[in-house]
Amino acid sequence: MKFIYTGIHVADLERAIRFYTAELGMQLLFKTEIKETGGKVAWLKTKGSSQILELNWYPEGYAQGGSSGLDHLAFQVDDLNRTYAGLTKRQRGAMAPFEEGSWRLAYIKDPDGNWIELGEKMRPAKTRKNARST
Amino acid sequence: MKFIYTGIHVADLERAIRFYTAELGMQLLFKTEIKETGGKVAWLKTKGSSQILELNWYPEGYAQGGSSGLDHLAFQVDDLNRTYAGLTKRQRGAMAPFEEGSWRLAYIKDPDGNWIELGEKMRPAKTRKNARST
Repeated sequence: MKFIYTGIHVADLERAIRFYTAELGMQLLFKTEIKETGGKVAWLKTKGSSQILELNWYPEGYAQGGSSGLDHLAFQVDDLNRTYAGLTKRQRGAMAPFEEGSWRLAYIKDPDGNWIELGEKMRPAKTRKNARST
Repeated sequence: MKFIYTGIHVADLERAIRFYTAELGMQLLFKTEIKETGGKVAWLKTKGSSQILELNWYPEGYAQGGSSGLDHLAFQVDDLNRTYAGLTKRQRGAMAPFEEGSWRLAYIKDPDGNWIELGEKMRPAKTRKNARST
């Protein structure tokens, strides 16, 4: 279980990227669209720190609250099914595991109602595995 | 300028620490009280990541919004006065530099209204410097 980044809501992704890069000197690592939802995300960091900030933009009508503030805290796990089963015995507000790109994701809530993302990186396809083993 | 941690509001510090340590396997690095306000903070991390989560608890009546969600994103800077003067030319919602323990702190807001903490670590007193140099 590894805490890997903090995601915050933004109402305008380009405006937020400009602020965090031009004003606070962060580096934009990548920017991508989530095909399933039409949402967009960007990752930023500063030199001398591995701390990652994710900016989360959602299309209109997306039901996850306001346009600013905390979106989620992200944890990488080795075995999503096992971690999720253990946690959901005791927590409420869960969203069952699903696939998104090369990750399997699930969500639970902390006692204050903050979303916690649990993510397991899926193994590369067999062709990738073969390329590595010989 | 270095992004060093994410702070989230919690309504009950001990309950939040229990969740993040017992349920999510984080390590409690330290817990302290802010003498000036009566507030409390705790720092947590996971093995294999330097990403820091700060839990922020405020006494009743503290005016910083709800009891959950994002509290602030923290950046360490080399020269607080210079950084603050530069940023406040263009940003609103600022809180001028003040001292807190061994840090000088100031706050600005990002375009979505999130608080950004700017902190400069103050130089140790002369007695400490002497202890190190001989």
